[in-house]
Amino acid sequence: MDEGLAREVSDKIAHRLERSLKPIPVGVSNRHLHLTQEHWDILFGKGTQPRKFRQVVQPGFWAAYETVAVEGPKGRLENVRLVAPHRSKTQIEISKTDAQALGIKPPVRDSGRLEGSAGIKVIGPAGTFELKEGVILARRHIHFAPEEAKDFGVKEGDTVRVRAGIGGDRELVFEKVLCRISDKFKLEFHLDTDEANASLVRTGDSVNIV
Amino acid sequence: MDEGLAREVSDKIAHRLERSLKPIPVGVSNRHLHLTQEHWDILFGKGTQPRKFRQVVQPGFWAAYETVAVEGPKGRLENVRLVAPHRSKTQIEISKTDAQALGIKPPVRDSGRLEGSAGIKVIGPAGTFELKEGVILARRHIHFAPEEAKDFGVKEGDTVRVRAGIGGDRELVFEKVLCRISDKFKLEFHLDTDEANASLVRTGDSVNIV
Repeated sequence: MDEGLAREVSDKIAHRLERSLKPIPVGVSNRHLHLTQEHWDILFGKGTQPRKFRQVVQPGFWAAYETVAVEGPKGRLENVRLVAPHRSKTQIEISKTDAQALGIKPPVRDSGRLEGSAGIKVIGPAGTFELKEGVILARRHIHFAPEEAKDFGVKEGDTVRVRAGIGGDRELVFEKVLCRISDKFKLEFHLDTDEANASLVRTGDSVNIV
Repeated sequence: MDEGLAREVSDKIAHRLERSLKPIPVGVSNRHLHLTQEHWDILFGKGTQPRKFRQVVQPGFWAAYETVAVEGPKGRLENVRLVAPHRSKTQIEISKTDAQALGIKPPVRDSGRLEGSAGIKVIGPAGTFELKEGVILARRHIHFAPEEAKDFGVKEGDTVRVRAGIGGDRELVFEKVLCRISDKFKLEFHLDTDEANASLVRTGDSVNIV
């Protein structure tokens, strides 16, 4: 083995060992939805605007005071919170536990990939509509700003293993966690409430790539 | 290294590789409870008996037709199913998702270890009572008959790593899964609905020790 190759391998190993010590903040996603302007108008009335409830960690996004109800063949869920600003497609992110209560079978999907996803009835104070597709279980993922991605040595679309709940009663390793990189993002591991409850992690905890 | 030691090490490695291919059936535990005779009498009336709804995998246990409601500071859950026969302590096993809806904080516990666990109001058709302690999140575990434990090379109280949802959208590895061995048991990996939904496994699927 030549010296250059030996150095390269040793640098890579050292980098991965260091990386496994860098904490990544956890953001647990409760059930929420994104609306198109058209769907907003149906649910809340034309000419009205969502009001900011609180900033979320990812820059530019915020949770609104407004919530909707959704109704499936087996049940109804109140208080599904709107996340603004509006989008080009309506998207509803729920947990598998929610889906079982509603009686629907949404697939695991990356945000925005909604073809063939589940439908549901959406109920607001000014009106209701049948969403044909748009209900998903969000695929767990890590948001990185470009500088952070460089620091962690990951590229857009890479998948990594994430160890969560270290030392706790429900420690586990999530396989194939998607890396998403944008100058609009900030370092954060997103998982849903089922995944958070299975590992006993909460928003504000941290996890590690292993 | 002498030949005996070399053979021992190689046998151990071969055994672990073989073990990782043996399927272990999954049993997802929905929320349920076990009652004392005294608590049964309060909820359903003295002189009445639970009726068998269906056998569960572990020999000797069965799910009853009878269900109760439980009520915490933040909410109420209907249809918590009784598992018979009765026990010396009342024990209620729910998910973390359930606990958040009820507004209580049960600890992760092995079955039967109830000291300092959460309390709840229990409601039946004939009466209600306040359970002081007995509500837990069940620690995930594997049941083995003695012959099965020998085959897997595990002893009572050992912990193992379990890979679940292989090839699926939510593959993960559960750390520190407890091994429980009894001639009353049959091979089965027990996890709750949050853990099942986080890994997308269902009753009848199988997992592996890795």
